[in-house]
Amino acid sequence: MRQAGRYLAEYRELRSRHDFLELCKTPELAARVTLQPVDILGVDAAIVFADILLPLEAMGAELRFEKGDGPRFPNPIRDRSAIASLSAPNVERSLGYVFSTIRTVRSELDGRVPVIGFAGTPWTLATYLVEGGSSRTFPHLMAWSYRDPEGLAILLDRLAETSIEYLLGQIEAGAQALQIFDTWGGILSRERWQAIALPPLMRILEGLPDEIPKIFYMRNCWHLIDLLADLPVEVLSVDWRLPLREVRRRLGRPMTLQGNLDPAALLGPVSEIEALAAGLLAEGAGGGHIVNLGHGILPMTPVENAKAFVAAIQNGRVP
Amino acid sequence: MRQAGRYLAEYRELRSRHDFLELCKTPELAARVTLQPVDILGVDAAIVFADILLPLEAMGAELRFEKGDGPRFPNPIRDRSAIASLSAPNVERSLGYVFSTIRTVRSELDGRVPVIGFAGTPWTLATYLVEGGSSRTFPHLMAWSYRDPEGLAILLDRLAETSIEYLLGQIEAGAQALQIFDTWGGILSRERWQAIALPPLMRILEGLPDEIPKIFYMRNCWHLIDLLADLPVEVLSVDWRLPLREVRRRLGRPMTLQGNLDPAALLGPVSEIEALAAGLLAEGAGGGHIVNLGHGILPMTPVENAKAFVAAIQNGRVP
Repeated sequence: MRQAGRYLAEYRELRSRHDFLELCKTPELAARVTLQPVDILGVDAAIVFADILLPLEAMGAELRFEKGDGPRFPNPIRDRSAIASLSAPNVERSLGYVFSTIRTVRSELDGRVPVIGFAGTPWTLATYLVEGGSSRTFPHLMAWSYRDPEGLAILLDRLAETSIEYLLGQIEAGAQALQIFDTWGGILSRERWQAIALPPLMRILEGLPDEIPKIFYMRNCWHLIDLLADLPVEVLSVDWRLPLREVRRRLGRPMTLQGNLDPAALLGPVSEIEALAAGLLAEGAGGGHIVNLGHGILPMTPVENAKAFVAAIQNGRVP
Repeated sequence: MRQAGRYLAEYRELRSRHDFLELCKTPELAARVTLQPVDILGVDAAIVFADILLPLEAMGAELRFEKGDGPRFPNPIRDRSAIASLSAPNVERSLGYVFSTIRTVRSELDGRVPVIGFAGTPWTLATYLVEGGSSRTFPHLMAWSYRDPEGLAILLDRLAETSIEYLLGQIEAGAQALQIFDTWGGILSRERWQAIALPPLMRILEGLPDEIPKIFYMRNCWHLIDLLADLPVEVLSVDWRLPLREVRRRLGRPMTLQGNLDPAALLGPVSEIEALAAGLLAEGAGGGHIVNLGHGILPMTPVENAKAFVAAIQNGRVP
């Protein structure tokens, strides 16, 4: 999950002087932001500061982050004919700033903790690119998926192509693990996820070297859980709703689980956070477990609470 | 699910002359809107035109519907002390317009099809009242639930009280079944849904007469499905993601199911809608089945497609 953000005074200070895209695109600044949670919270890995939508901008889609509104694509791609406006970018040229950030972070960390790179799945990228921004019902994307599934498949395939290049570039720059976010895959039924979202995702996973550990995250995946067991990934990251013990049982094969404290729990009292941390460690026993939140950290999280969670997990760690 | 709306030219015509709250509060107009889908689509029941948030306004919370923004509560209730600003309304006086709408609809339908009343669950109402409008992450409500669960329980209990009066008023006015929407209950884990959302919901269900058929809807309920089997309701309405056959198997007791075509499927070609309708009828076999969408109809739905779905179901009906 994203670790840096508005809940950190150090991040807000940088943001007061630079807009979000500028932070992402200035490797020295992005590296500083990447390192903030490692230094402040003491987490055991760094996740590069970037946004899943950056490769779409690299493909030629105009991307804006507007105050309060989140990401916006003023020219959404809503049918087959619009796909032509996207290019196959030279990722070194158009996304090299992310690779530089990773290199800087690796060098500054000097082996202290590993660095995780990431990307969104083609389906999840498409929710933004087709809607033109955030959505709750995704009407344009869903409409397209029923109207012209073959056309949508072309778009998703193009997104997969660029994602592979982007992730390979991250590995080359020094990323030691990759997280693939299918945040919105869970809005699809089983049949439709398999038919629409899975093929371009598989193309990405098969385009990456076996050696790099892969973490797959999906929000809202309970109805798809047995399908996720078949993915060629080492780690499955689930949201805050699912009891890890039950996830492990349903997966039916040994997989490391990542997650899944309710991010909102960090808004409660520290005593409860500590109790939940202990419960989470117990829940996750019986196999590999990367303790994490079940979704992104909330901007209003008190930093002391995030620290308390990290400390409680580290103190409770199985030796 | 809501049947009327912007996808109907007849509705848009009325809305061009009246704002949303005015439509809800003018029984002759609300009755006309309620009857539109019955007359235009030929559906087998009418659901009263109203909004789940109306009882909150009746309790004294200022409610606005702003163009494009959806509902907004300018003075959200975010802690225990703010609850005092809510009153226990005389529902006949403050929500009597809904009851009048139901009476008018009953009289105009004259037995043609039954009329369904509805309300939101306290938890789902609270998502709007506490956030101050729509949200994707519900940070204020979630924060409150961890910070002061007893205080939140007081709010939810107050919402349950008013909801009971409101639903009893709907029955008295002639509603022949009730639908209870827990649209956002599924964002909670099992333990938290049981601890927080279930008690005020049970209070409502136990406050209603046994004789009135009750339909319970939850979006995103797969991780709670066995708990829902225990609710004292006749019908469980599920979203578009869940295969009905599997839901029936997991419920473990005979229950009528409602749902669950993906609303976005109505944006696709008619030939596919007809194929999906046939599949849905087959999926729903093996027990009672009220065919419906799995979530609200999308504003961009072509009315011909909605008609085609209703016709396909009625023609495919088991005799």
